[in-house]
Amino acid sequence: MNYSVVVEVTLRVGIADPEGATIERALPALGFNGVRSVRAGKMFRFDIEAESSDEALTSAQSLAERLLSNPVIEDATARLVEGR
Amino acid sequence: MNYSVVVEVTLRVGIADPEGATIERALPALGFNGVRSVRAGKMFRFDIEAESSDEALTSAQSLAERLLSNPVIEDATARLVEGR
Repeated sequence: MNYSVVVEVTLRVGIADPEGATIERALPALGFNGVRSVRAGKMFRFDIEAESSDEALTSAQSLAERLLSNPVIEDATARLVEGR
Repeated sequence: MNYSVVVEVTLRVGIADPEGATIERALPALGFNGVRSVRAGKMFRFDIEAESSDEALTSAQSLAERLLSNPVIEDATARLVEGR
């Protein structure tokens, strides 16, 4: 069966995030106030073939940690979603 | 009050996604089979100050569409999340 997966890759707490900091600094000049703690990350969506949803999630999580993220500075979380 | 927001920025359907295509092509050689339709995107997390959750969401969605994405080729979706 095919399962749809979303993987979120975020920088670990304490790792500098220059992209997020730049966005945060730019927002007030663009008319958005009250926005704090901006953190930028990556997202991947894919379909994975597996026998069960557990197997799909395990294999997506391992793929996310090994190939889609740098575990030294990033956390990767996989979750199953309905459709796309 | 402060609300935590996640914004997901994905390429619109039909827009070529070379990053996703490269990942998809590389996976079988790395031991992951049965993965299809890989799409790469971006993710942002931030805290926003607003009077109500509705106001927070509206302002996050407008920020996402105007500043965090390129509406010609990307879709942006904001959603509120608990904590971080």
